[in-house]
Amino acid sequence: MLTKAEITRLRSLREKIHREAAGLFVVEGTKVVGELLAAGFPFLEIYATAEWPVRLAGAGKGSSRSPKAGANPAAIIRVTAAEMARISHFPTPSPALAIGRISREPLPPGVLNGGLSLALDGIQDAGNVGTLLRVADWFAFDRVLLSPDCADLYSQKVINASMGSFARMTVHTVSLADALAGCTAPVLGCDLIGDSVHALPPLRNAVLVIGNEGRGLSPDVAARVTRHVTIPGHGGAESLNAAIAAGIVCDNLRRTLAVAQ
Amino acid sequence: MLTKAEITRLRSLREKIHREAAGLFVVEGTKVVGELLAAGFPFLEIYATAEWPVRLAGAGKGSSRSPKAGANPAAIIRVTAAEMARISHFPTPSPALAIGRISREPLPPGVLNGGLSLALDGIQDAGNVGTLLRVADWFAFDRVLLSPDCADLYSQKVINASMGSFARMTVHTVSLADALAGCTAPVLGCDLIGDSVHALPPLRNAVLVIGNEGRGLSPDVAARVTRHVTIPGHGGAESLNAAIAAGIVCDNLRRTLAVAQ
Repeated sequence: MLTKAEITRLRSLREKIHREAAGLFVVEGTKVVGELLAAGFPFLEIYATAEWPVRLAGAGKGSSRSPKAGANPAAIIRVTAAEMARISHFPTPSPALAIGRISREPLPPGVLNGGLSLALDGIQDAGNVGTLLRVADWFAFDRVLLSPDCADLYSQKVINASMGSFARMTVHTVSLADALAGCTAPVLGCDLIGDSVHALPPLRNAVLVIGNEGRGLSPDVAARVTRHVTIPGHGGAESLNAAIAAGIVCDNLRRTLAVAQ
Repeated sequence: MLTKAEITRLRSLREKIHREAAGLFVVEGTKVVGELLAAGFPFLEIYATAEWPVRLAGAGKGSSRSPKAGANPAAIIRVTAAEMARISHFPTPSPALAIGRISREPLPPGVLNGGLSLALDGIQDAGNVGTLLRVADWFAFDRVLLSPDCADLYSQKVINASMGSFARMTVHTVSLADALAGCTAPVLGCDLIGDSVHALPPLRNAVLVIGNEGRGLSPDVAARVTRHVTIPGHGGAESLNAAIAAGIVCDNLRRTLAVAQ
């Protein structure tokens, strides 16, 4: 039986300000909770109705946010459907609601000089941020950087859209201009004007920056870009969706690396 | 002053069954109405409050659905904000609501043998269908085919997500298995297993088929595919979003054609 205070606490996590204050986030839904458990994400608590089969899943790659893949330490708290309806953020509650700890990982100095990083500069649509985590995961990027004005990594929409990649990718929220200062790896800016993405040389180490859906790259980040790359288009559309553009550049980066091997 | 019957008629168009019966569709919003006018889409009626500046825009590429780019024949009907609130489908009405004619274009025999076609096999998310129209437009594909179980082309969400490409692309709703029977151009199926998209030969004529978000290609369409292509992935994500996968294959098709020229 949940107390009124517990219900209030759980409901409050739908808002970013309360998530930040508590250092906790919430996700709801059998699919997303299952995806994160499968990826080894260490939830603190899982509220579940009798409909939800307790599967102490935990076989996953692990990541910096899921250090102990294989052992799911979450406390399973059985609730009634009526209790779930009170703690749920949705009009149609699901059988599972999970609480995880927010971790903000500092960016180790010099880390951007090695491997492939995807940096998101003011991507405000939560679905786009989640989809971009999935793109970075598909192409085995080493990390994702979010500028502070991106959609909140710990919002349900971002986590849902990432299809589990949230638990597998290492993500840092940082000032991109500061992080890119002194970066010795090429900084590629995806833009409407630049070198064709088909002419990229093989790059083992690089940072790919994707700008805001409407405004593109912010001026202080654009100043750190060492190579603007563009996707040759031929038709009437003015631009491509940010996540599609990122996917195409990532594919070209992987293609040129494979050719060079 | 709108009559009650007019208000009922306009409101009914939010549902596909009423759109089909009337042969009409509705879009709302300054941005989307402006985008379609700019692309030369011949609306029948535009309901506008005093906030909406009448711009008889019409400079666009034109398409089979906008045959008379340059001349916008729409009747502009001024309404009050209160009237707009009654005809709008949204809780927050916009200053412009436009009515257009639904046109279902038959697929001319043999047309798939020439040029590049994008075929969507049961893409059910309206945002994905609209984004895929935008991808086809960016890469100057000649046409888009929708299977009958795709999201409705004339829904507001599809049209919004297309960012104007709805008015520029020629779209046919057809049984894909029937349309692909007898097609002499290569039929590429985007799949998790197949030849690497990086190894595609230059193809001047091809049909690229994108399957349902969860199920992939339907069996009767997969039977018509002459070459399964896959996007090399290296990380933990199980799949890519359908529109991102399509964008990557389109980019590779255009890249190999450019190299061959």
